[in-house]
Amino acid sequence: MGGHWGTRVDIQIFGESHGRGLGIVIAGLPAGESADMAEVARQMARRAPGNEISTARREPDQVEIISGIKDGVTTGSPICGMILNTDARTQDYRAMQTSPRPGHADFTAHARYEGHADMAGGGHFSGRITASLVLAGALTRQYLARRRIVIGGHVASIGGIADRRFETMGADVADFARLYAMDLPVLEEAKGTDMRQLILEAKEEGDSVGGVVEVMACHLPVGLGEPFFDSLESQISHLLFSIPAVKGVEFGDGFALTTMRGSKANDAYKNCDGSPCLATNHCGGALGGLSSGTPLIVRVAFKPTPSIALPQDSVTFADGSASRISVPGRHDPCVVPRAVVVVESVVAMALTDAWLCRYGEKG
Amino acid sequence: MGGHWGTRVDIQIFGESHGRGLGIVIAGLPAGESADMAEVARQMARRAPGNEISTARREPDQVEIISGIKDGVTTGSPICGMILNTDARTQDYRAMQTSPRPGHADFTAHARYEGHADMAGGGHFSGRITASLVLAGALTRQYLARRRIVIGGHVASIGGIADRRFETMGADVADFARLYAMDLPVLEEAKGTDMRQLILEAKEEGDSVGGVVEVMACHLPVGLGEPFFDSLESQISHLLFSIPAVKGVEFGDGFALTTMRGSKANDAYKNCDGSPCLATNHCGGALGGLSSGTPLIVRVAFKPTPSIALPQDSVTFADGSASRISVPGRHDPCVVPRAVVVVESVVAMALTDAWLCRYGEKG
Amino acid sequence: MGGHWGTRVDIQIFGESHGRGLGIVIAGLPAGESADMAEVARQMARRAPGNEISTARREPDQVEIISGIKDGVTTGSPICGMILNTDARTQDYRAMQTSPRPGHADFTAHARYEGHADMAGGGHFSGRITASLVLAGALTRQYLARRRIVIGGHVASIGGIADRRFETMGADVADFARLYAMDLPVLEEAKGTDMRQLILEAKEEGDSVGGVVEVMACHLPVGLGEPFFDSLESQISHLLFSIPAVKGVEFGDGFALTTMRGSKANDAYKNCDGSPCLATNHCGGALGGLSSGTPLIVRVAFKPTPSIALPQDSVTFADGSASRISVPGRHDPCVVPRAVVVVESVVAMALTDAWLCRYGEKG
Amino acid sequence: MGGHWGTRVDIQIFGESHGRGLGIVIAGLPAGESADMAEVARQMARRAPGNEISTARREPDQVEIISGIKDGVTTGSPICGMILNTDARTQDYRAMQTSPRPGHADFTAHARYEGHADMAGGGHFSGRITASLVLAGALTRQYLARRRIVIGGHVASIGGIADRRFETMGADVADFARLYAMDLPVLEEAKGTDMRQLILEAKEEGDSVGGVVEVMACHLPVGLGEPFFDSLESQISHLLFSIPAVKGVEFGDGFALTTMRGSKANDAYKNCDGSPCLATNHCGGALGGLSSGTPLIVRVAFKPTPSIALPQDSVTFADGSASRISVPGRHDPCVVPRAVVVVESVVAMALTDAWLCRYGEKG
Repeated sequence: MGGHWGTRVDIQIFGESHGRGLGIVIAGLPAGESADMAEVARQMARRAPGNEISTARREPDQVEIISGIKDGVTTGSPICGMILNTDARTQDYRAMQTSPRPGHADFTAHARYEGHADMAGGGHFSGRITASLVLAGALTRQYLARRRIVIGGHVASIGGIADRRFETMGADVADFARLYAMDLPVLEEAKGTDMRQLILEAKEEGDSVGGVVEVMACHLPVGLGEPFFDSLESQISHLLFSIPAVKGVEFGDGFALTTMRGSKANDAYKNCDGSPCLATNHCGGALGGLSSGTPLIVRVAFKPTPSIALPQDSVTFADGSASRISVPGRHDPCVVPRAVVVVESVVAMALTDAWLCRYGEKG
Repeated sequence: MGGHWGTRVDIQIFGESHGRGLGIVIAGLPAGESADMAEVARQMARRAPGNEISTARREPDQVEIISGIKDGVTTGSPICGMILNTDARTQDYRAMQTSPRPGHADFTAHARYEGHADMAGGGHFSGRITASLVLAGALTRQYLARRRIVIGGHVASIGGIADRRFETMGADVADFARLYAMDLPVLEEAKGTDMRQLILEAKEEGDSVGGVVEVMACHLPVGLGEPFFDSLESQISHLLFSIPAVKGVEFGDGFALTTMRGSKANDAYKNCDGSPCLATNHCGGALGGLSSGTPLIVRVAFKPTPSIALPQDSVTFADGSASRISVPGRHDPCVVPRAVVVVESVVAMALTDAWLCRYGEKG
Repeated sequence: MGGHWGTRVDIQIFGESHGRGLGIVIAGLPAGESADMAEVARQMARRAPGNEISTARREPDQVEIISGIKDGVTTGSPICGMILNTDARTQDYRAMQTSPRPGHADFTAHARYEGHADMAGGGHFSGRITASLVLAGALTRQYLARRRIVIGGHVASIGGIADRRFETMGADVADFARLYAMDLPVLEEAKGTDMRQLILEAKEEGDSVGGVVEVMACHLPVGLGEPFFDSLESQISHLLFSIPAVKGVEFGDGFALTTMRGSKANDAYKNCDGSPCLATNHCGGALGGLSSGTPLIVRVAFKPTPSIALPQDSVTFADGSASRISVPGRHDPCVVPRAVVVVESVVAMALTDAWLCRYGEKG
Repeated sequence: MGGHWGTRVDIQIFGESHGRGLGIVIAGLPAGESADMAEVARQMARRAPGNEISTARREPDQVEIISGIKDGVTTGSPICGMILNTDARTQDYRAMQTSPRPGHADFTAHARYEGHADMAGGGHFSGRITASLVLAGALTRQYLARRRIVIGGHVASIGGIADRRFETMGADVADFARLYAMDLPVLEEAKGTDMRQLILEAKEEGDSVGGVVEVMACHLPVGLGEPFFDSLESQISHLLFSIPAVKGVEFGDGFALTTMRGSKANDAYKNCDGSPCLATNHCGGALGGLSSGTPLIVRVAFKPTPSIALPQDSVTFADGSASRISVPGRHDPCVVPRAVVVVESVVAMALTDAWLCRYGEKG
């Protein structure tokens, strides 16, 4: 297993859901950047569980900085942040040691790691690992914010109930602030109420629901990205498809572009202070793998949480005999609301890497 | 610009659409693997233009092997394959030197490379660059085929006209062979006829259409992939989003999973010769970023070709004055049919890398 | 700053000498490998200070495993090991905040990290950081030992007093065991006595001495390494020149080869069970960047410890005025004895990576 | 086999000595940098054979640029340069197909590539591959020169006959120009005469000699390098130990530092325009893996050319029977004079990468 990503900001992840803890090493952030740990804590809190629509597991997700930040400023050496596990109930995971849970990595990890993976709580495959991504995101978005780039997101849909989409030419930053404060961030409040209702229904039934997260990054300069292979979309999607439960990614109008004519899908140019700029944003902020100056817009499909209370068919590892598995752990009936900040975070990581590639440490 | 990808098979791409030529270096293929160049030529021909639904540019796309293959066998040293350009008409690209073509990289590349990018024919951003990917794919799929893995694809939709989907539990290899031979590969012939009609209509109107490619890889062992960050989906999507015009990627049921309950979306296990195996394949062949033993299924959204004859609004680089641009070059009214082999190729590259990471050179 | 190395075993280092602690993430060790933590502690103890010829700083260098090892077996996910700092005396480092210590990174780090590097105790540039390398080495050498490869080293010289060299065709493993147990490991005991004397003299004078470490790895299969760029020597030297105070590296007869004729420097072949094998080992175990089947032999030059009590000329950062600096911290008069295990460790890391590249996870 | 190196300038090498040709892809050089191909040709000529002290093989080493440079300016996309082989005499290499030449990669490559490596002329292991490094060096040193950094080298010794060393505080750039023009570049002409004599003697005897190359880079800013692992010395030594025949590398006073006291080895600081700067340069231009502002000085040990006419003991691959091998090809009796520009080139590559990491594309 790898766990490493990035060129100029590089990231190494580690940890298991029910082990000693988890964390991340973030190398390459220039020295002298302020690191507001209260703001980090606010971002961590957005992902942390703690209400009726999320898991009952209580983890404060308190970050301990081991290195790389001193007196609230980056030192230039790799930043290591750790999050200790405090509320693991490993007894809940006994069943899956004998039979794999449908939809989860139990089966594939058992094959790959030949029975040695520490799969309690999902181990290294747990959604809990994304806490480390939020930490990396919380630091990189502070870096970007000082360069005017802001990132926000909302729940675009849950179980088919759809919020309206972001305005493609950019949001008011105040909108982002409002969304950060919501436990189920949506643009249309009524839709949020319906989504919440649906989640609670699924929970009651011992079932789960999925949804779509939409994230937007505003004020990117034109030309960020490292095509051919490290296009902006390549880097962002690479990170997104590492997040557990992600099954689809689209930029701009995405799959809907496949039903348009070119004359409609193309974004014409208009004059902005003497230079070309895009008049529309079907492309979602990237052309030729490089940022286009319009907001970067990405939508991410999350499948329903695989861990459900309803009994499902499985098979015992030992002899292949049929079994029924009901996952008794404390699980989210829907991970989508908590995933918004995770998606924002990996977008921040990718943009910071692209920025440093282009502008260097002094940019 | 980068142009490098991969861990154990690694790839470096180079070239421009209207320059001397283009090519690729493929390092890491073990020595002693046979490299059937006639088969390579067949794959290259699938991407090459040459009929009424593609560009009128005639490029034989003949590959010259510079190194790494001797007497039809890999030597173990990096393979360099070159494709010289023979039919470039650079005069067609004069307009875009003064005004960027909507939907293309002219604008973003001009900003990033500060006017120095060689953008004739789209330069390094041209779809023509994907010829190199097909070469890499043609060699890696031979490697995989000797390890039982076969890859095939079809046009899942064009302009909203949808072919039926692959059977999610696997296709007959004979079906793949039949698809390889079609210039517009579909499972339902009638849909192919409709799609062809739509492409010709768009062509006539000086417009273009987009669509979706679906690719399937069968007979993967369980457990390929390098999560956390280098999950199978991460690696494949990374490569896919480098292909010009790709705007969306989904695995398995993808975005449709967001409207299902977990109890339906999860793939239950059944007994296969004494071990668990998946009874369904909503996940599209990957769980926890590792191959699940079911076919890998990916769908890729291509936007309509941005180069169209219809006049579009643009702005001159020099002074920001309004201009109208009509792209007079020879362009595909729809790249989707030719893109099928490109998607197959990058899937082959990603799987070969994952295979070598797991099993080494002797596996 | 980077801190990442490796292809199939990859390493991310973090930490500062006087911060919360330091550590390393080791990704890529296959699952199911036993990890004997008592043996790890023995290796850590070889580097830890604790006698008259080393610093008076007392650090138990106790490793806490955060992830990746469970019940003494690797799980396949990244291994994170931490070492907390317990005996830092930051007050000793006040002077260098105003004036750089000659021979140390104070000056260059001040320029690069623009005054923000946490340089207490040398910060991320401290020799203390090598404790993490010993941890990585302790785990990888267990991996290698199960594949027959054993690694040992000795002090080849200190201040010009030279031990005899290793027999180039290999050592008795018992010799290695004897060396592991010595605080100043030498082949000729009398030379060790002289070296110890020299170190104590230098210490008394408030000065320091350097020396050469020689390390040998036996029982490598023929053909490990990834030339062109990732030759065995390239990978090993890359790691070695990251160790603070290393200023020279040579393999086999090294610089002495430059005064030989080819007819003498070349290693002829003899018949070993029907195949060629090297009759001598001037090359030091590598030809064309690939292991040759003879022992890998490397010698590493360490400069004298830059931190000395004798006053030296420096200049204040603030205004460029002349200053005199005497380093009052607790320092090794000679790091060479403690460096033996560090050199062995990075050789183990490089060989493990080369092994996994060649043979995969199942090799 | 890999063949890839670098972070922000990255390099992919390919080719075989007697195949179609060889070349290199250089990605990451910013757009808009002028690329003087006449100057490139002059650098290539320094490595090319063509006199009494080098091989009789005549290769014009003419570079064809396939991509990435247009009208003498970089376009920002990967630069591919090819050098076709024209004067290969493969018949000279028949013997080594049955028995390995001592000192060369025949044996190890045979093992690793299981008999499939194309070893004619040394194949991918030939010194001829370094022509590509000189191309990369020729382009990157132009980039560096525009940022004031200049690089020169000389033959420090051959067969024990030693030239005097570079002045450690820097050379007159005029000295470099004088050295570039010499086929056996030395500071003391008389020593050059003796070296030439020694080379001709060895040639007459059918034998070969080795030597040391010393290279210096002047005017580096303080703080280049990416420690911990990618220290300036790590990156440079990594590249150097990929050059065939390199067996030792030292920076500054190197191995000689191991016999000094710290009080002498440390470089004290003096006041330079109000800031500290090094008063001496024992460290060879790097402290803590970062450039120190003094000239970077590296010495590189080359073993004698392994290919000699004198008969040597070998063993046939087929049955292990004894054989005698005399290498009839056209070989250098000493590669050291031609290697000077190769060492300079890889230093240029490493410094360009470090520069881009620090300052970005706009620096």
